[in-house]
Amino acid sequence: MNTKILLNERPHGEPNLGNFKTVQEDIRTPKDGEVLLKTIYMSLDPYMRGRMNDAKSYAKPVEIGEVMEAGALSQVIESKSNLFKVGDFVEGRTGWQDNPTVNEKELRLIDPEMAPLSTSIGVLGMPGTTAYVGMHNFAKPQEGETLVVSAASGAVGATVGQIGKIYGCRVIGVAGTDDKCEFTKTELGFDDCVNYKDPDFKEKLKSACPDGVDIYWENVGGVTFDTVMPLLNDYARIPVCGLISLYNATSIKGGEKDRLPLLFRQILTKRMMIKGFIVFNHYDQREESILALSKWIREGKIKYKEDFVEGLENAPNAFIGLLNGKNFGKLVVKVNPDPTL
Amino acid sequence: MNTKILLNERPHGEPNLGNFKTVQEDIRTPKDGEVLLKTIYMSLDPYMRGRMNDAKSYAKPVEIGEVMEAGALSQVIESKSNLFKVGDFVEGRTGWQDNPTVNEKELRLIDPEMAPLSTSIGVLGMPGTTAYVGMHNFAKPQEGETLVVSAASGAVGATVGQIGKIYGCRVIGVAGTDDKCEFTKTELGFDDCVNYKDPDFKEKLKSACPDGVDIYWENVGGVTFDTVMPLLNDYARIPVCGLISLYNATSIKGGEKDRLPLLFRQILTKRMMIKGFIVFNHYDQREESILALSKWIREGKIKYKEDFVEGLENAPNAFIGLLNGKNFGKLVVKVNPDPTL
Repeated sequence: MNTKILLNERPHGEPNLGNFKTVQEDIRTPKDGEVLLKTIYMSLDPYMRGRMNDAKSYAKPVEIGEVMEAGALSQVIESKSNLFKVGDFVEGRTGWQDNPTVNEKELRLIDPEMAPLSTSIGVLGMPGTTAYVGMHNFAKPQEGETLVVSAASGAVGATVGQIGKIYGCRVIGVAGTDDKCEFTKTELGFDDCVNYKDPDFKEKLKSACPDGVDIYWENVGGVTFDTVMPLLNDYARIPVCGLISLYNATSIKGGEKDRLPLLFRQILTKRMMIKGFIVFNHYDQREESILALSKWIREGKIKYKEDFVEGLENAPNAFIGLLNGKNFGKLVVKVNPDPTL
Repeated sequence: MNTKILLNERPHGEPNLGNFKTVQEDIRTPKDGEVLLKTIYMSLDPYMRGRMNDAKSYAKPVEIGEVMEAGALSQVIESKSNLFKVGDFVEGRTGWQDNPTVNEKELRLIDPEMAPLSTSIGVLGMPGTTAYVGMHNFAKPQEGETLVVSAASGAVGATVGQIGKIYGCRVIGVAGTDDKCEFTKTELGFDDCVNYKDPDFKEKLKSACPDGVDIYWENVGGVTFDTVMPLLNDYARIPVCGLISLYNATSIKGGEKDRLPLLFRQILTKRMMIKGFIVFNHYDQREESILALSKWIREGKIKYKEDFVEGLENAPNAFIGLLNGKNFGKLVVKVNPDPTL
């Protein structure tokens, strides 16, 4: 049987378990060009919240009754493909299910000798490539610059900050617990990290950035951006790859005044650059990013932390927690045992 | 005597004549490496309003009692320079004065055979280079895209729109009078132009952009940006080179809600790019821009309109009018007769 988790109803604000529905169906025998997979590691990422809304975005929404979207690392258990044979490991956007039948074109082969399999959906997968592409194309870090990274212990943020260190930046993390902050400093080598829930967040971030902020990596929006905004230097670059603080918002909170003109005045006088991007538009750089990140991992310059959840059935709960910062490191669902371990 | 116009006091909101003070002083004899100039054409530009404030910006403010800043086209009347001889025409940031003595390093030679002298402070000067650099580096127009240009009949906007036409864009202007709109369509070849004071501005702009907006050239801020914002397409680029609607503001007007989060959501989902820039940081591209613009002018692809004001004494009043859109074309003060005419 194939167990799959569907979108049952669209969430209003924070998702709850009722928004998801688990169903079982017969495994579908692959046709020519298809493979039957056993899912081993499934990725949970904040962007999935956007797919649950019926709103125009960069990708079409998941429809009610459709399987939830996700990237996953799987093993081929039956093949009608010339590209993949039984036993191969593959990565692709195969969704919240444990035995999907998938077209070969949607998969890429993963070499289990190169790195632990789970990294193919983490630091050597979508989040790692997001960090690489955004730093390389938009942030363009220069030695001695100050980089502030939000969601600093997350899958993207942790990699961004370490790339910043490789380029010689002063790297300041922002995270939601003291443990996460400590981790970015002691394990990842960040110069400092500030907890945004700290009542003295504003003062602490300012004193951690005595030369202002040259690059702000935007994963979150909200209070973190508000606090960074007055610290931005001339020629600051702001790659925007996520806004997790807004994803569960049912309305955009109105402050007492509209800061849009203020932002534009800063953009002009400081000659700033703000650039939204989605990694899926940059997969022509995927191989380059995986090569670079693999090398840095081998050299000990990039470390990664994974937060494993056991069992597909726990994915909805883990995903709800992810949107509240409950995970610590890249959130990965162990759907089936990893045969390489 | 050298007549010069000083900043007398800092304006609060809209400048008035009392903010300026005209003084006369003896002409200063040039020392080695200096030249004495007779100002012929002086440029008035919106950015000068920023220099009148005592606020951190991309350039230091004009101090009280200092001569107001401006670029001008002048003739050398006495020379202690090896670079320039008497009779030469030069352009430089020589300020609101008619007989300044200036270091040779602050000047560039202008060939009077190449184009009318006044263009060296207009379409072949700072405003033209602003348009060229912003389009080339940041807007990156592609054939078939829709470009909306604010302040469309102004020195920068008119050039931006015509460059857009050269690149095959659909070009829609926004201006403040019907005459200006008509001019951009009949003289400059814009596809359409909408008056932002029209009560149906919103509807008219929308219907002028049936395929949305790929490039918005921001000269003004305020209602024009607000109206363009919902029309922006995926991958929209917004070069920000001016915000004239804000320059006289004494406080940033608060709407009923803060649209900053809304903007960031759009930046992310539409993968937009917003980039502030100041032409003075891009003068390594000045020669390239003048060559390109000269060629386009010779080919009849770029036209320009100048709005002449007679006499240095009328500069303050003309400048006050500029900030209210009273000029029609590049505002130029005729300080002394042009000997080439």
